[in-house]
Amino acid sequence: MHKGRLEAFSDGVIAIIITIMVLEMKVPHGEDWATLVPLLPVFVSYILSFANVGIYWNNHHHLLQAAKHVDGRVLWANLHLLFWLSLMPFVTGWMGENHFAPIPVALYGIDLLMSGIAYYLLVHALLAVNGQDSALARAIGKDFKGRISVAVYVVAIALAFVRAEISMALYVAVAIMWFVPDRRIERTIRD
Amino acid sequence: MHKGRLEAFSDGVIAIIITIMVLEMKVPHGEDWATLVPLLPVFVSYILSFANVGIYWNNHHHLLQAAKHVDGRVLWANLHLLFWLSLMPFVTGWMGENHFAPIPVALYGIDLLMSGIAYYLLVHALLAVNGQDSALARAIGKDFKGRISVAVYVVAIALAFVRAEISMALYVAVAIMWFVPDRRIERTIRD
Amino acid sequence: MHKGRLEAFSDGVIAIIITIMVLEMKVPHGEDWATLVPLLPVFVSYILSFANVGIYWNNHHHLLQAAKHVDGRVLWANLHLLFWLSLMPFVTGWMGENHFAPIPVALYGIDLLMSGIAYYLLVHALLAVNGQDSALARAIGKDFKGRISVAVYVVAIALAFVRAEISMALYVAVAIMWFVPDRRIERTIRD
Amino acid sequence: MHKGRLEAFSDGVIAIIITIMVLEMKVPHGEDWATLVPLLPVFVSYILSFANVGIYWNNHHHLLQAAKHVDGRVLWANLHLLFWLSLMPFVTGWMGENHFAPIPVALYGIDLLMSGIAYYLLVHALLAVNGQDSALARAIGKDFKGRISVAVYVVAIALAFVRAEISMALYVAVAIMWFVPDRRIERTIRD
Repeated sequence: MHKGRLEAFSDGVIAIIITIMVLEMKVPHGEDWATLVPLLPVFVSYILSFANVGIYWNNHHHLLQAAKHVDGRVLWANLHLLFWLSLMPFVTGWMGENHFAPIPVALYGIDLLMSGIAYYLLVHALLAVNGQDSALARAIGKDFKGRISVAVYVVAIALAFVRAEISMALYVAVAIMWFVPDRRIERTIRD
Repeated sequence: MHKGRLEAFSDGVIAIIITIMVLEMKVPHGEDWATLVPLLPVFVSYILSFANVGIYWNNHHHLLQAAKHVDGRVLWANLHLLFWLSLMPFVTGWMGENHFAPIPVALYGIDLLMSGIAYYLLVHALLAVNGQDSALARAIGKDFKGRISVAVYVVAIALAFVRAEISMALYVAVAIMWFVPDRRIERTIRD
Repeated sequence: MHKGRLEAFSDGVIAIIITIMVLEMKVPHGEDWATLVPLLPVFVSYILSFANVGIYWNNHHHLLQAAKHVDGRVLWANLHLLFWLSLMPFVTGWMGENHFAPIPVALYGIDLLMSGIAYYLLVHALLAVNGQDSALARAIGKDFKGRISVAVYVVAIALAFVRAEISMALYVAVAIMWFVPDRRIERTIRD
Repeated sequence: MHKGRLEAFSDGVIAIIITIMVLEMKVPHGEDWATLVPLLPVFVSYILSFANVGIYWNNHHHLLQAAKHVDGRVLWANLHLLFWLSLMPFVTGWMGENHFAPIPVALYGIDLLMSGIAYYLLVHALLAVNGQDSALARAIGKDFKGRISVAVYVVAIALAFVRAEISMALYVAVAIMWFVPDRRIERTIRD
C-alpha cells in the first residue's frame, strides 16, 4: 500500500479543518473597533486551535516520513485521528463564544485528549506494520511528549471546573512543548 | 490518461465532504452540558456519515490502486459517485436535526443507495478499460460486499417507514461490514 | 516552471467549488417530503452546476495534460478562470432560490460566459508558450466546442428575458455537448 | 525533509482560503438587479482579495521552487504566513459589508501587512537553510518588492483614517506591482 495518497488525503482534511475554523469568526455588523471586541475570545481560541492543528500536521508529516509501510489498520487509525481533529472547529467556536467558561474549556480539552490518544494509536499502528526495530521505532523512542500531553490534558480537563484559566495555560504549555518538531525523528532519518 | 490527478481530485472532494459535515453541527448558545444535548442526534449522524465517507475513501483508494488504466467513462463515473457523496452533508444534517424521523432516515438511505450504485458503476467502468482478466478484475471477484450493501439499503429504506431504528441498525451493520478494507484486492496486488 | 503544482492548486480550488455549492442547499426545518419541495429548484441548479464544474475539471485535466510548458501568463490565465468558477456557488444559489427567474438565469449565463472566455484565454496562453506546432495546438484544432459554447451562452443570456426556460435548455444543451471529453486531444496524446 | 508535502499543504490551505471568501457574498433575497447593488462593495473586496491571495500562491510557488531544502523553522514560518492569509476572508467580509469604512479598510491593510511580514520571515527561514550563496539567495536578491509592499501597507493603514479611498488605491497598486511573477527567481532557475 502506498502512503502518498494517505498523506494527500490527510493534508486535505487538515487544511480544511485549519481554514474553516475562521468561519466561526462571524463578520460583525458595525464598523468601529468596539465591534471587534466581543470577537476577541473567539480570535484567541482560533489562534490556539490553529497552532494545535498546525502542530498535528507538522508531527503527522514527520511521522509518515519516518514510516516505510502503511496497512489497512493505519488507514483507520488515521481516519480516527482526523475525526477528532474535525471536531476542533466546533469546540473552538463553543469555547470562544462562551468566553472560556468551564464546560466549553473542558470540552475543548476532551477533544485535544481524544486527538492525543488517536495520535498515539496511529503511532502504534505504524509501529506494528513497520516493526519494533525500524527507523520509525528508533525515531519515536519512548514518545515522551505524547505521554506527557495526554496526562496534562487529563489534569487540565479536571481543573477547568476549578479555574478555566489554569486549563488554558496548560493547553498553551502543551502547544509550546510540541512547537519544536520531533528532532529525534528528523535526526534518525538523516542518519 | 493518468490516474494520479483523478485520485488527487477525488481526495480533495472527499476530504471537503467529510470535513464540512461538521459545519451542520452549529455552535449552540449557552455554556452548560444541557446545551449540547439537542446536538446529540446531529453528532450521531455525523459519526455515521464520517465512517461512511471514510469507507468510500478507503475503498476508492484500494480500487484505483488496483486499476492500471482510466478513460473518459471512468472520469464521469467517478464524478457521478462524488455527486452522491456530496449530498451526504445535506442528508446527514436533515436526519440529525429531525432526530431520526422516518422520511429523513429513508432519504439518508437513498443517498447511501445511490452512492452504492455509483460505486458499482465506477467499478464496472474500470473493469471495461482494464479488462476482465486484469489484476483489478481478479481482485474484485464477485463484488459480494457491493451487492449486499445495495440490497440492504433497499430494505432499510422501506423499513424506515415501519421503524427507523431498524434502518439505522442496518446502516451501521453495512458500515461495519465495509470497515475491513477489501483484502482480496490488497492480496492480489501483493502477489 | 513545473505544471504539477498548477494542476494541484486548480484541483483543490475546483474540488472546493464543486463541494461548497451543496452548502447553498440549507437543511430545512420539518421532517416530511413537503419540506423538501421548495428546495427542488435549488437542487436542480446544483445538479447543473455540478455538471458544469465537473466538465471544466475534465477539460482542464485534458488541456494541461496535452501541455508541456507553463509560464507566468498561464498561471494568471488559470487564476482568472478559477475566479469566474468560484462565483458558481453564488450564481447557482441565487438562480435556485428565485426559481429560475429571468435575471438570476441571465446572471448564471453571464458567469458561464465569462468562464468560457477565461478558458479560451487559458487555451491561448498555453498555445503561446507551447507553440502553434505543438501537440497541444494540433490537439485543440479549431476549438469548435469552445466557440460554440460562448455563442450559445450569449444567446441564452438575451433569451432569459424572453423565456428563462429556453436559456435553461440551452445551458443543459451546452453541458451535454461538453460531456464527451475532447477526443481530439486524447487521440493526439496517444499518437 | 521533503518540500513536496509542504507545498501540497500550502496549496490546500490557500485554495480553501481563496474559495471560501465567496461564502461571504450571501445569496440575496429578491430576483432583480437592484438586489445585487448592496453586494457590490463585497464583490469588489472579493476581487481584491482573490488577486492578493492569488499573488501569494504565485510567489509561494516560485519561492519554494527555487528552494532546495526546508527544515522545521521553514514549516513554522510557512504556517505563520498561512495564519495571516486565513484571516483574509474575515477582513474582506468586514471591509465589504461596511462599504470601505476607515477602520475596516485599516484592518484589511493590517492583515496584508502581517502577511507581508510573514512572507519576509519565510523567505529568511528559507535563506537560512539554503545558504546565502544558494540559487534561492541570488534569485531573491534585495527583495525590493517585499520591502516596498510592507512600507506601502504601513502608509495605507495610516491614511485609512484620512481618506480610505487612498488606502484602497495603494492596496490595488501593490497588487499590480506583484502581478508580474518574480522574473529574477525564474531567470536564475533557468540559468
